[in-house]
Amino acid sequence: MALSRYENLAQTLRRQIDSQVWLPGDKLPSLRDSCKQSGLSLMTVLQAYQLLESQGVIVARPQSGYYVAPRKVRELNRRANQTLHAAEQVDVNDAIFDILKGGQDPSVVPLGSAFPDPTLFPQPRLARSLASAVRRMSPHSAMANLPPGNEELRRNIAQRYAQNGMEVPPDEIVITSGAMESLGLSLQAVTEPGDWVAIESPAFYGVLQAIERRKLKAVAIPTDVRTGMDLDALEQALETYPIKACWLMSNFQNPLGCTLSVEKKARLVAILQAHGVALIEDDVYGELYFGGERPMPLKASENRSEILHCSSFSKCLAPGFRVGWVAAGAYAARIQRLQLMSTLSASVPVQLALADYMQQGGYDTHLRRLRRQLEQRQMAMFNAITETFPPSVSVNQPQGGYFLWLDLGEKVDAAKVYQRALAQGVSIAPGTMFAVDDRYRHCIRINTSFEWGPHTARAIQIIANIVADELKH
Amino acid sequence: MALSRYENLAQTLRRQIDSQVWLPGDKLPSLRDSCKQSGLSLMTVLQAYQLLESQGVIVARPQSGYYVAPRKVRELNRRANQTLHAAEQVDVNDAIFDILKGGQDPSVVPLGSAFPDPTLFPQPRLARSLASAVRRMSPHSAMANLPPGNEELRRNIAQRYAQNGMEVPPDEIVITSGAMESLGLSLQAVTEPGDWVAIESPAFYGVLQAIERRKLKAVAIPTDVRTGMDLDALEQALETYPIKACWLMSNFQNPLGCTLSVEKKARLVAILQAHGVALIEDDVYGELYFGGERPMPLKASENRSEILHCSSFSKCLAPGFRVGWVAAGAYAARIQRLQLMSTLSASVPVQLALADYMQQGGYDTHLRRLRRQLEQRQMAMFNAITETFPPSVSVNQPQGGYFLWLDLGEKVDAAKVYQRALAQGVSIAPGTMFAVDDRYRHCIRINTSFEWGPHTARAIQIIANIVADELKH
Repeated sequence: MALSRYENLAQTLRRQIDSQVWLPGDKLPSLRDSCKQSGLSLMTVLQAYQLLESQGVIVARPQSGYYVAPRKVRELNRRANQTLHAAEQVDVNDAIFDILKGGQDPSVVPLGSAFPDPTLFPQPRLARSLASAVRRMSPHSAMANLPPGNEELRRNIAQRYAQNGMEVPPDEIVITSGAMESLGLSLQAVTEPGDWVAIESPAFYGVLQAIERRKLKAVAIPTDVRTGMDLDALEQALETYPIKACWLMSNFQNPLGCTLSVEKKARLVAILQAHGVALIEDDVYGELYFGGERPMPLKASENRSEILHCSSFSKCLAPGFRVGWVAAGAYAARIQRLQLMSTLSASVPVQLALADYMQQGGYDTHLRRLRRQLEQRQMAMFNAITETFPPSVSVNQPQGGYFLWLDLGEKVDAAKVYQRALAQGVSIAPGTMFAVDDRYRHCIRINTSFEWGPHTARAIQIIANIVADELKH
Repeated sequence: MALSRYENLAQTLRRQIDSQVWLPGDKLPSLRDSCKQSGLSLMTVLQAYQLLESQGVIVARPQSGYYVAPRKVRELNRRANQTLHAAEQVDVNDAIFDILKGGQDPSVVPLGSAFPDPTLFPQPRLARSLASAVRRMSPHSAMANLPPGNEELRRNIAQRYAQNGMEVPPDEIVITSGAMESLGLSLQAVTEPGDWVAIESPAFYGVLQAIERRKLKAVAIPTDVRTGMDLDALEQALETYPIKACWLMSNFQNPLGCTLSVEKKARLVAILQAHGVALIEDDVYGELYFGGERPMPLKASENRSEILHCSSFSKCLAPGFRVGWVAAGAYAARIQRLQLMSTLSASVPVQLALADYMQQGGYDTHLRRLRRQLEQRQMAMFNAITETFPPSVSVNQPQGGYFLWLDLGEKVDAAKVYQRALAQGVSIAPGTMFAVDDRYRHCIRINTSFEWGPHTARAIQIIANIVADELKH
């Protein structure tokens, strides 16, 4: 049975309302605009609107127009839509995305999240810098801040390197849309699809995905929760495979929390240089140290031009800004060109805002407070874990960052712990996220950046109870 | 001859000043901080600073500290650095990057630029929206605006689709860091390395680079400056090669300016659907029409779930913000996941600012003025070209966008015209940028978005003279 013209139009508007193009309370296009757009007569459009009004979908307000009525059925429609999306075939580990976005659900304590507690950052100061940046923005800002990115910001970053005794000229720094982009661009700069790359095991899932996306082959080097990458194993891998690049986190590694010793750092750089292997260093947690001194990056070594040092402001200062950088040494020009052809440049207003913030001073004061808070929160969480978890569970206490890595014992399936904890409103990161195989299926990563209190205490108790229960079976 | 400790430190500081870590007038780290960082004694550090002072590199200001002195030699050092970068081996067409970044040099009339004249955009209104967005930012904004991106902004975009008679639910829209990222994510979503992709010839260089980066194989379909892609040739290519995806610009194509007719659009979609080929539509210029009506995107067709419609605010509203989107249909979930693993999300403050701007209204008023200005400027530039260029040069007049495509005739080498014009302070885009071979070596693209006046008139005259001269040889 064919629908008349006005019924057709009513059905279209109904579909738009159901898919939330228009929300309850939104004003619909005027009759005149609707006529113009649809090519239908005023009478036909009016009939359609009146039909929807008679169905209670929209309401007329005299002298104003038609508005979407509040209706419960739309909530149902929306949920049906979301289920449809979740059921689509995907080629990556679903758990990773559920956990990444799990923090969006306020009813879940996001101990599985990779993001630091958002209340740790100087929101009002950043807002002032953004407002000031807006005033300085000119029509020419877009061009002026193309790769390598804002000059002032690059100089500020170079000065911070200098203050740590590292000579990194502003010309070698490229501002990016965050450390994840830095990593992707760096991998592109030093490899071709099919090349071999040495990575840590366990590793940050972002690098596993980046490697898969670029069709690289990975050699996963055993990495110890205390001492970091096994360098003998790395040397053996370099003898066995034609490895082009090595990617790792030298300081407060994600997920383990381990930091390479000064001696191991020197040996690692020497090994890679002897084999002519490019080094991509992901150092996003390096500033979050609890001791008196920043652990040095590998980039601090003598021959640093083949070391791509990736970092960002996302873990230390401004999570939502999406601004990071690569100190790219000899690869600076290549990184810029790859960036021009993938995202063009980092967003200009946020580059200017961070340059203003750095210029104003106060970043070090903020970092000192942040480190103190993270240390206190880690301590509280660590103590609670050692008190509540079964004694067979092992946990190490890193000297920085905000992750704890728990080995629950071979008998426990972390995926099951994840599911059971989530059902009780707590997320954790199961070890399977950090390797391409099941090697860490009995491990979990806990985010310790959240304030210690009844919520977090209860969350830790919930996980401890589940683990104890799983150990009984 | 070994240097003493203080000489070593002085040399390090000198190098940092030469590489512009510290600019003339910058305050150097205090003696105390410098001791702490270097592990040297106060006396040693003081000797180093005094040595630099005696060399005129830094100056002491009583009660304040040491500052970098102004010195001409540093300018020379800087230039040497830049030459070094430019000499590095690169794997992409140098001209593209020179031209992309050419707009940064205020002494060059950037007719080769791909960017619209930055003064065309409502800077004060955008600044107000950014300031308002800053006020609304909360610690939870970063999480709340993860892919698919800001809900309000996606709804505003969906409403604009609806006003053009297209049903695109907000759930299918993913906010990106600009159309270039939209394109890259879309290619990743529908292809694997080694797959075949049909593109236009000539094509936007961004797609040529994206294809090279992803190790795809391209079939370039002849595209006419008036009528667009040759659909018979496309059908033939689809019979010959196992093509997985087709990428094109349906409206005001870059570089030609052509727009597919309504009939060709319908036929194109039917052909691709019959062959099960995914369609990536780049529609960044679609809003810049001069006629009474927006030319419809391919996405407006009935079966649209396999069409990825990429667009952005960079050509119409806010060039430096780096915010775009994909209306990704069936691929929406996949695009989100690819984005989470490459740039995480678009920058949050600029997403909020654009949502605020769209909510406030006035975008359509701005667009109407923008279209009028672009049309007037194109007309002025077109008239000047037809008056000053040799009659053998052919040029078409598109009904939107801001590019003119000039065929200078087989005898003329556009690369030479480019070099000669640049030497006289004018940039153009040579045809070799838009193909992997030399097919368009006698063509150039001119950006018509700049205000007509003595500068632009002189620039057109310069190019015309060079072309006339080249034709004589």
